[in-house]
Amino acid sequence: MVGFELTVLGGFGGPWDGGLQSFMLKPTGSQEYGYVCVDAGTGLKELIRLAATRGIGGKGMVTSYYENDYEPVDRFHDSSCKILCGIGTLSSKAADAFEDGDGKGQRKVLTSVEKGLELYHEIGEVFITHCHLDHIMAMVVNSPVIYAHKKSVLGLPLTIEVLKEHVFNDKIWPNLVSGDEPPFNLITFKPYESYICNSVPHWNVTCFPVSHGLTVVDRKPYYSTAYLFQDGRDGDSLLVCGDMESDRISNMSHLSEIWNYLATNIPFERVRGLVMECSTMDLKDESHLYGHMSTRHVIWELNRLKKAYGKPLDGLNVIVTHIKMESLDKDPRIIILKELREKSIEKGLGAIKFSVAIQGYTHFI
Amino acid sequence: MVGFELTVLGGFGGPWDGGLQSFMLKPTGSQEYGYVCVDAGTGLKELIRLAATRGIGGKGMVTSYYENDYEPVDRFHDSSCKILCGIGTLSSKAADAFEDGDGKGQRKVLTSVEKGLELYHEIGEVFITHCHLDHIMAMVVNSPVIYAHKKSVLGLPLTIEVLKEHVFNDKIWPNLVSGDEPPFNLITFKPYESYICNSVPHWNVTCFPVSHGLTVVDRKPYYSTAYLFQDGRDGDSLLVCGDMESDRISNMSHLSEIWNYLATNIPFERVRGLVMECSTMDLKDESHLYGHMSTRHVIWELNRLKKAYGKPLDGLNVIVTHIKMESLDKDPRIIILKELREKSIEKGLGAIKFSVAIQGYTHFI
Repeated sequence: MVGFELTVLGGFGGPWDGGLQSFMLKPTGSQEYGYVCVDAGTGLKELIRLAATRGIGGKGMVTSYYENDYEPVDRFHDSSCKILCGIGTLSSKAADAFEDGDGKGQRKVLTSVEKGLELYHEIGEVFITHCHLDHIMAMVVNSPVIYAHKKSVLGLPLTIEVLKEHVFNDKIWPNLVSGDEPPFNLITFKPYESYICNSVPHWNVTCFPVSHGLTVVDRKPYYSTAYLFQDGRDGDSLLVCGDMESDRISNMSHLSEIWNYLATNIPFERVRGLVMECSTMDLKDESHLYGHMSTRHVIWELNRLKKAYGKPLDGLNVIVTHIKMESLDKDPRIIILKELREKSIEKGLGAIKFSVAIQGYTHFI
Repeated sequence: MVGFELTVLGGFGGPWDGGLQSFMLKPTGSQEYGYVCVDAGTGLKELIRLAATRGIGGKGMVTSYYENDYEPVDRFHDSSCKILCGIGTLSSKAADAFEDGDGKGQRKVLTSVEKGLELYHEIGEVFITHCHLDHIMAMVVNSPVIYAHKKSVLGLPLTIEVLKEHVFNDKIWPNLVSGDEPPFNLITFKPYESYICNSVPHWNVTCFPVSHGLTVVDRKPYYSTAYLFQDGRDGDSLLVCGDMESDRISNMSHLSEIWNYLATNIPFERVRGLVMECSTMDLKDESHLYGHMSTRHVIWELNRLKKAYGKPLDGLNVIVTHIKMESLDKDPRIIILKELREKSIEKGLGAIKFSVAIQGYTHFI
């Protein structure tokens, strides 16, 4: 088993302006390769913080601001999962940059800013699930530093089109995508196509469109993306989903197609994990879902995955993301995790390991 | 003297994705009125943090991540300025929400999230200097919570047009500005027009266009805004500038017109302060300014203000903002402050009080 290291740079789905969705991935234990990101709602600043706090140790407390301002991290993760506070394995190059000399020799002691930049430059590819601002804003604001280390940005044709027309348009942000050698190399990625990562050449990525509700004015479908990462060495796979709604709401078949694709192409024991949005706990009035998942929909979809494989989902890692930090008495992340665990037992889905994506933690899956 | 309380929600100008420019203003000591914001690169999340830490006291340390990961706040502020760590005077309503009961009576003890939202809802008007993402992104991401407490968003006609066409367009973000009663009331604000604040009816605001460099592709001028707040009771005034370049670079007269307007309309002792961008320290190659100010340009412009008034700028508060957190050995905020103080003495500008806008601090000016 190779597996994945998934570092959560951000896991929120608003309305807080910070810690928004962004995942950094590499093969477990790899000192050779850099990173791939899915979404870019958070970026460089969190990497600088992680560089500054690396090696401080401890599992730490998580800022909550609900019942208590801080909660123990154990409340958000499955107790049998391997989790690290901070970033995981460093590349040889980054490890070298992180090694503090005595400041007297020829070797310069790097600042936390420089160490964070070293990590940032190791992100070669950013897979965007959709163009809502909470998924792209760090990529845009961080862009002045990428000239020396260009990045590829991948997304559905429509996603790339929107980035060109409405973001890098010299109005919302300077146009950094035109000209001969733009710092961002925009790559359109068609549904069900495959792509071999530059940053991690063992990884094959497949792109699936998903439904993310309707536009406000024209009531037209809005599309988001799920990305499947497969390691060519042993087939270990990880599915990372963007914002989406259940087929039960969209009356489309996007998710059932993904579950069938997995069951047909990947043995269950090679599905190392699913990263799935669950923006809210169960709502009485589902007209306020706005193209998102609540716990009952996550459970309904996982039940379909179970049926597709024809067996319980024992040991599957499900990392829940994009939780909306609403005004409630209790931290919505804790409520959602409890609801998912209870409903999963009720439906007999198997011993799924549910966790919430918490900023600054690395999952080894 | 009434004066102003200016709370820095964010003072960075990138490339860090967090703590980006946003100022919250109210008349000094006012328990009656809410807030007005200039720019919205940071918002609700910082208010929740400020609610959680209110009353903890101490002047605190500032995260730096350069020479040291934390620096004493005194390194960033003029020693004679009145500064508070946290938010300033609360309205009577907010003070009531902040008062913790014993949790046993009828009165509910509010979470930090609820207290932060109470502050957020007291922001009635947001003045946008321009539409670059670092100045608007929190307003967009925070928007799901504004339905019960609508906000007016003001800007130059072009700024409002870009918000409609490229942000609230059902592609980058759901369209929350159309229909009969949209949560955002977009108001176009023409150059040199005046506007009476709803949130603070004593305040008259005047809007000045400024130059913010050229677009990348068409090499056309890009405009930003400076806002002048004048208190009708005693004429106390505060100028808050968006990103801009010196007239010496733009070959336009936007800033000289502002300096003349001030000198003609406002006695010097009523100019409580200037908030001015200074994105970088002095550069050898000014082709990399990209429509921004370096220290030598700030000094050059302040010298013109001195000439407009015909006397030294003794006691003037100049709060420097939008510093770019570049990769350097030393915190650029400390370098810039040192350069400004030295050059100001060299030029004989008078005893200006220079400070840097630091997130989470309130200036009483």
